[in-house]
Amino acid sequence: MFFASDNTSPTHPDIMAAVVRANEGYPRSYGADPIMDRVRSQIRDLFDAPEAAVYLVATGTAANALAVAIHAQPWTAVFCHENAHIAVDECGAPEFFSGAKLALVPGAHGKITPETLTAALGKTGASGVHGVQRGMLSLTNVTEAGTVYSPAEIARLTAPAKDYDLPCHLDGARFANALIAANATPAEMTWKAGIDVVSFGGTKNGCMGVEAVVLFDPARAWEFELRRKRSGHLFSKHRYLSAQMEAYLQDGLWLRLAAHANAMGQRLHQNLARIPGATLRHPVDANILFPTFPSGTNAKAEAAGAVYYNWTTPDGQDAARFVTSWSTTEADTDALLHALTP
Amino acid sequence: MFFASDNTSPTHPDIMAAVVRANEGYPRSYGADPIMDRVRSQIRDLFDAPEAAVYLVATGTAANALAVAIHAQPWTAVFCHENAHIAVDECGAPEFFSGAKLALVPGAHGKITPETLTAALGKTGASGVHGVQRGMLSLTNVTEAGTVYSPAEIARLTAPAKDYDLPCHLDGARFANALIAANATPAEMTWKAGIDVVSFGGTKNGCMGVEAVVLFDPARAWEFELRRKRSGHLFSKHRYLSAQMEAYLQDGLWLRLAAHANAMGQRLHQNLARIPGATLRHPVDANILFPTFPSGTNAKAEAAGAVYYNWTTPDGQDAARFVTSWSTTEADTDALLHALTP
Amino acid sequence: MFFASDNTSPTHPDIMAAVVRANEGYPRSYGADPIMDRVRSQIRDLFDAPEAAVYLVATGTAANALAVAIHAQPWTAVFCHENAHIAVDECGAPEFFSGAKLALVPGAHGKITPETLTAALGKTGASGVHGVQRGMLSLTNVTEAGTVYSPAEIARLTAPAKDYDLPCHLDGARFANALIAANATPAEMTWKAGIDVVSFGGTKNGCMGVEAVVLFDPARAWEFELRRKRSGHLFSKHRYLSAQMEAYLQDGLWLRLAAHANAMGQRLHQNLARIPGATLRHPVDANILFPTFPSGTNAKAEAAGAVYYNWTTPDGQDAARFVTSWSTTEADTDALLHALTP
Amino acid sequence: MFFASDNTSPTHPDIMAAVVRANEGYPRSYGADPIMDRVRSQIRDLFDAPEAAVYLVATGTAANALAVAIHAQPWTAVFCHENAHIAVDECGAPEFFSGAKLALVPGAHGKITPETLTAALGKTGASGVHGVQRGMLSLTNVTEAGTVYSPAEIARLTAPAKDYDLPCHLDGARFANALIAANATPAEMTWKAGIDVVSFGGTKNGCMGVEAVVLFDPARAWEFELRRKRSGHLFSKHRYLSAQMEAYLQDGLWLRLAAHANAMGQRLHQNLARIPGATLRHPVDANILFPTFPSGTNAKAEAAGAVYYNWTTPDGQDAARFVTSWSTTEADTDALLHALTP
Repeated sequence: MFFASDNTSPTHPDIMAAVVRANEGYPRSYGADPIMDRVRSQIRDLFDAPEAAVYLVATGTAANALAVAIHAQPWTAVFCHENAHIAVDECGAPEFFSGAKLALVPGAHGKITPETLTAALGKTGASGVHGVQRGMLSLTNVTEAGTVYSPAEIARLTAPAKDYDLPCHLDGARFANALIAANATPAEMTWKAGIDVVSFGGTKNGCMGVEAVVLFDPARAWEFELRRKRSGHLFSKHRYLSAQMEAYLQDGLWLRLAAHANAMGQRLHQNLARIPGATLRHPVDANILFPTFPSGTNAKAEAAGAVYYNWTTPDGQDAARFVTSWSTTEADTDALLHALTP
Repeated sequence: MFFASDNTSPTHPDIMAAVVRANEGYPRSYGADPIMDRVRSQIRDLFDAPEAAVYLVATGTAANALAVAIHAQPWTAVFCHENAHIAVDECGAPEFFSGAKLALVPGAHGKITPETLTAALGKTGASGVHGVQRGMLSLTNVTEAGTVYSPAEIARLTAPAKDYDLPCHLDGARFANALIAANATPAEMTWKAGIDVVSFGGTKNGCMGVEAVVLFDPARAWEFELRRKRSGHLFSKHRYLSAQMEAYLQDGLWLRLAAHANAMGQRLHQNLARIPGATLRHPVDANILFPTFPSGTNAKAEAAGAVYYNWTTPDGQDAARFVTSWSTTEADTDALLHALTP
Repeated sequence: MFFASDNTSPTHPDIMAAVVRANEGYPRSYGADPIMDRVRSQIRDLFDAPEAAVYLVATGTAANALAVAIHAQPWTAVFCHENAHIAVDECGAPEFFSGAKLALVPGAHGKITPETLTAALGKTGASGVHGVQRGMLSLTNVTEAGTVYSPAEIARLTAPAKDYDLPCHLDGARFANALIAANATPAEMTWKAGIDVVSFGGTKNGCMGVEAVVLFDPARAWEFELRRKRSGHLFSKHRYLSAQMEAYLQDGLWLRLAAHANAMGQRLHQNLARIPGATLRHPVDANILFPTFPSGTNAKAEAAGAVYYNWTTPDGQDAARFVTSWSTTEADTDALLHALTP
Repeated sequence: MFFASDNTSPTHPDIMAAVVRANEGYPRSYGADPIMDRVRSQIRDLFDAPEAAVYLVATGTAANALAVAIHAQPWTAVFCHENAHIAVDECGAPEFFSGAKLALVPGAHGKITPETLTAALGKTGASGVHGVQRGMLSLTNVTEAGTVYSPAEIARLTAPAKDYDLPCHLDGARFANALIAANATPAEMTWKAGIDVVSFGGTKNGCMGVEAVVLFDPARAWEFELRRKRSGHLFSKHRYLSAQMEAYLQDGLWLRLAAHANAMGQRLHQNLARIPGATLRHPVDANILFPTFPSGTNAKAEAAGAVYYNWTTPDGQDAARFVTSWSTTEADTDALLHALTP
């Protein structure tokens, strides 16, 4: 009964097998391995982006912070949701890498709206040299609230940013889950909707530790490479990153894993309705749920061995976050539901 | 015939097996996995340092840059050899992480001497607020020239630094090779010789990608953790780093691997003497050789399939760098020697 | 009719005379001039703080950014009002100097409240290494809304910060105006109320360009000096900064100038009541007013030669900011009122 | 007998008078004052550069650090003489503002040579992403050794830099002294010789505290303005900077002052020859001398009231640095010579 995060799940056997297979010979180091050449082609094909620059790093924070750093100047603001991972869960990494500051945009259920974004854009840079300038937009999909932007919603947010010529980033730590939820293609969710750079996550969806950064405009590719090295994120034995990503993308494994995780999320969602007093604080679009229960529920579930983030709301209810993953089983969800039921 | 670097070698089978074994269940993420608890104990025992703080990262540049950042203030100088990895091979990572500048100290064969260090220390900070202040010392062992400092040599360099209360760092990307060469214990090579923090390398000696940072004084441990997260170097699925390190240290594997690499280096060394016109630019203390050959040798060896860094000296000779590793075989060295022989 | 800002006012004649008087001989440069010795004593006496470290810089942004930099680590948050000068009017200088991020705290009329501060403090650092830590508190007095914190109000804000051992900064760009408004002594407004470091403004109140930074705890004085130099804010011909500050503080000139500015603010305040449709968006505690007028008023006043910041509110009214200064005359205020009157 | 530095001299009376004259009315703040408009025209005319962007700051370190920051990316090296002011006398300000590192180029008498520069350029960036890239060139004229580059010498140094498309900066803290020494025009010494940006000094040559930064290519002007604000170097009461610079440039005052300072340097130079045992360590091209005397000379001169930097050479001689300025009189030089004579 492990629902703390999809990053506590193991590595999918096919991906682990690929890592083991990569363990022979002496390919060139620092990203010049032949597997990386294949990964680059895979990702360009997937995104229908033959010119895209593609890089691998091992953590989502590295992917995001580097993506921000090549697009936001130190005297600018990065517009993001006030609960975005880059704002609250990366200990200031985007600011460290870029020197920029974050402009926090509110919005229900983890989503920026065209209205809240337009207001924030309008307020920034209005006093000339005295304030920071508009820098870039960063969206997250799946959001921190477990909701999913459709491609059309993304396009409605990149549009006002593009009015100011701002680059647009998508934090896709759970990109596969978002695609499944939105029934969209990678291209539709990104460059066709105005996204210039995407953090394409692997770790939370069955990899050991690998994320791709995809730059649809390769103009800043060399700068990316220098910043990756300069921040310690260029791996010498890069083949083990490449091998993970190749297997992850092979034959649609990544989408099957996300589809399963989302299905487990929906299974939890549907069955929560049977628990007396259970309510949901956000829509359940993918593999993350934010339920609230009568007081005492968390203690009971924990005693039964359920592991997840939980806390008490100001009005004394039990709050929880459940995250399902590629390895969550139906039995796991049933056991959790049982543990939560009075 | 792969002698380009020890970082092109594969992962040792025992270490890969440990990674595969770690691939089950749902341990806590972000370094709270039980394997890491065991690794911490292993390293404290190895270094005879029961209070040491121990952290894992995936690259040597990350280990060094973080070690520097927690010890050097932005207005200080980090004293290091002018050819140190932190000075020439990390694209400015130590400066990026710390804000400090590097004070490059000369010295033959990759080694700082007490004289060159004392001169550099004396020159720095002499003009009050106008210049940067003395910050810290960073030594490298094995050096970039393939030479090895003995513990006594290290102590003679940390002593003048300690006169100014400077923290002392050891870049031990090839720490095991240095220990074997110097026939020293980890404690003798580090804290007993005045070292406060060591980058303890695994990647170049048979791991997939893991380095430990060992802080003998844990006072800055929390700062280290924050800086690690803030630079994107805290792994969510940390168990795969832990598993590598645990297997690497198990039953002295790490020392056996380094002993083998060094032995292959010595084998090359001894046999190079038979090649007409071959000379060595630096003493061969461990697993790195810098020979010079008559013009034409590199072309011939490359044609025969030998892979290594090579260039032409100003006076027209063929220069080379050979690095042996845990996986270099006697047959490899013989083949290389054959390829180099006219 | 110049009400755009107190920083468009000229230099008080006594201060200019002191600058001219300082223009002889060859005193030591870089802050070692004898006038600075006297200024240090003056400020220590004024603040009843015999151990305080005292430094001069030429701009308020420099004073604030340096004060923040010596107190906030790069992985921490600086709590300040969402409209604070350091948040919106310094183009990210505090973040540039410190590496820290700002945590924006809401509150009516430019003031943080114990409730909003406590909420912000509680939210920060709650997720361990994933988020930035609590760093420091920065208050502004006079606030950007023209309101004034009393010493008791300041103490109620520094108290929750002190519960977390956070240093507390006061941006006193208009410190003299705040003291006059609150009828408080410098000590009461600062260290007796929990303030550790103050940016003590001179420029807006009759100086040419000088601000003092007063560190009640001198422990970080040397770091301050190095950061000041490193940011280009150490003046070689420092005597001209010292001379301004000495004259500013001589015989209470600084308080007389602020008392006059505040009196002119009150005069405007009282007479605005006679203008039909005029309302105030914030209380007028010192020398800044934020009135709203019927549409057309700003155009009429501008045509009559009145200079001030003005804009249109969302609901179509004319908004304005008036700032009075040491050099504002009663005639100026009467002329402005005349120009505003339909 | 004050020869410690030209920055201990007072402000020229004409410049002080201009500051006093500027002290009326309410001109716009933050550089929008009408005097600045005139200064911009003056400098464009002087440099024969009608498109140049012109900005004022108050310190040389600010001018240099900002000039570097807009031209050098964080992952690049700034090539400069190993004794350059930006390398040794600014406490790391250029690195702080830019994130770049300095590549120290040797050369006798404070001068880089085409050979030393070409060697440094060739060495940098040769290892791809592992090392920092070539960033920019920064020259100093008058050099720290008191020597002067001719325009032709500058052109021979900017040429190899231009081969790599590197921007070229001139630190002209003593630009006027260099022009007088080289008998060159501002244009000849700068853009006609390949210089892209110049720190045009005023403070050391009779101003109170003002330096211009002149960008011959205005493409980065807006970035400069943002970086100036963000570093606290944008003055609200900017008119007092403008007034200094206007008076400094009026009717060739700046060149007359420098001509006088240089003449006093030459006078010292010629008369030093009469002091038994006096030798010069560098050629005396402008207003700075580096003589060496028999032991005991410095003590005797100091006792007589002479003020200058002095130290003992490794072989026991008395070393000195004398700097003359606009306000040095013939009587001062005679008194110094008398004090130095056994």
